[in-house]
Amino acid sequence: MDSQAEGIRRGDRRALSRFLSRIESGDPTCEAALAALYPSTGHAQIAGITGPPGAGKSTLVAALTTELRQRGGTVAVLAIDPSSPLTGGALLGDRVRMQGVAQDPGVFVRSAGSRGATGGLSAFTLDAILALDAFGFDHILLETVGAGQGEVDVRHAVHSVVLVQPPGAGDAIQALKAGLLEIADIYVVNKADQPGAGLTAAELNTLLTLAPAEAWPPPVLLTTATAGDGMGPLADALSQHQAFLREAGRAQAWRRQQAAFHIRSVLQRRVLADLQRRLNSGSLLAQLAEDVCNGSTDPYAAAESVSIYHNAIEVH
Amino acid sequence: MDSQAEGIRRGDRRALSRFLSRIESGDPTCEAALAALYPSTGHAQIAGITGPPGAGKSTLVAALTTELRQRGGTVAVLAIDPSSPLTGGALLGDRVRMQGVAQDPGVFVRSAGSRGATGGLSAFTLDAILALDAFGFDHILLETVGAGQGEVDVRHAVHSVVLVQPPGAGDAIQALKAGLLEIADIYVVNKADQPGAGLTAAELNTLLTLAPAEAWPPPVLLTTATAGDGMGPLADALSQHQAFLREAGRAQAWRRQQAAFHIRSVLQRRVLADLQRRLNSGSLLAQLAEDVCNGSTDPYAAAESVSIYHNAIEVH
Repeated sequence: MDSQAEGIRRGDRRALSRFLSRIESGDPTCEAALAALYPSTGHAQIAGITGPPGAGKSTLVAALTTELRQRGGTVAVLAIDPSSPLTGGALLGDRVRMQGVAQDPGVFVRSAGSRGATGGLSAFTLDAILALDAFGFDHILLETVGAGQGEVDVRHAVHSVVLVQPPGAGDAIQALKAGLLEIADIYVVNKADQPGAGLTAAELNTLLTLAPAEAWPPPVLLTTATAGDGMGPLADALSQHQAFLREAGRAQAWRRQQAAFHIRSVLQRRVLADLQRRLNSGSLLAQLAEDVCNGSTDPYAAAESVSIYHNAIEVH
Repeated sequence: MDSQAEGIRRGDRRALSRFLSRIESGDPTCEAALAALYPSTGHAQIAGITGPPGAGKSTLVAALTTELRQRGGTVAVLAIDPSSPLTGGALLGDRVRMQGVAQDPGVFVRSAGSRGATGGLSAFTLDAILALDAFGFDHILLETVGAGQGEVDVRHAVHSVVLVQPPGAGDAIQALKAGLLEIADIYVVNKADQPGAGLTAAELNTLLTLAPAEAWPPPVLLTTATAGDGMGPLADALSQHQAFLREAGRAQAWRRQQAAFHIRSVLQRRVLADLQRRLNSGSLLAQLAEDVCNGSTDPYAAAESVSIYHNAIEVH
């Protein structure tokens, strides 16, 4: 086995850090190591913390980490930065807020970019979660900025989705109209010390009663993460949701869904990387673009002429 | 030729609307129609309006549209909604703000979702821009929420990138540290009636002087879109940037880059759609996920076993 993968199983944090960097850089030799680590996974409780910018997600993740540590569990935080130059600054600030908990040896914090990651965030995120799980963390908190298709898909990678919202009358209604009702297992109205938090929570509760009854009725919690308020009930809700999943086959269904998402993500990454390689080879893409510009073809016909396209469509 | 594509060339707005819906739904027969429309493109001036949530992008797009109309040009607005349930609500509100200009027959507004769009936003966006260009609009304004890899890539589809920021001391520095220096052709500090706008603009100007000198030094403009203030200078800057691109081969280089981006996006969409088809066929993905769950394989080995993967890697 890969020496870093061995290190991960032994609990070597430096090996874990370096291995995550390799995954992030798209090192194709990681897959064999991850395959070898796979049987060591399945222990961690994985929660996704998502929500709009300004909801206070990072502060909440730091406060929740403190709470989970006090309960005796180890915690890995994986913060996914979609690598937009436009949000990079805010994320830089968020990381600073995590430094308090990051000195604790039972806590591991990783901020992962995706700049240039062919095939999007999904495969990288799933690989990283798998490595953290194999390392033996009790809790994995996946923080995502919650904008863009890629991040929404990430919910298939976690046991519990926590949606964090700031107070704001009417926003809850808009969010729920937009399809939010189905995505979260736990709703959090953060910044509960600000005016309107109770109203936003009441709105959410009302709207949730209008949704079809589910076996897991999602709770709505009020938190003030800056003061650590509400972290006990949030940790309780996560552990209750975990117990719910363990009931009557639900954990198995979840693991099937996660496996399917992982297989598809790995395949997407591979076909896109291969396409890129093919387009770079012999400056094929530059030549085709030139042909389009001089009017001898159009982008669609040019795409058709690339043989990988014909393979993909015809050979199976 | 496709009757809707014919309609687009004749200037039939209903045909355009319906054709955009077909593109958005992933109708594969659109590509032939787009190929036929391709020779009619190249007229429109295409600008991307991007920036963080809360910068006032939609209001600015509406005000800029009014300004461009007063100068006699027709305007198409394409607002890309990354289909996150988390931003859907805000975008709903934004669309309402566009209604004022949308009654004008020289204006066309389209809000495009990407929910379920295999292969991401890029190919859809490029196809839609092409259809709007073929229709004959003088200006195409592409509004993106500016979070996530997909939206950042979209800058390859536009002539000019306008980055809109709200006032906020220090934010400019963070944004520029994060790599913003290279992406925008025009910087706008919107909400100039709020405190700190002048300072943010001054900060941006200072930081831009530290960047390597470029043939096009990006201007920093102050606007108050809610009052329509600053729209004249913004429209001037866009037309100056357009003139700059027309100089000495730059337009040709841009068109090559756009063509390359378009070809690659079309190919990505196709290989991902084909992968999905392959995984659905005979419940292949569900079967592989089951194999992973019962421990007979892992996600990486399962991915390897899918024949499309071997085709893509080996046959070229």
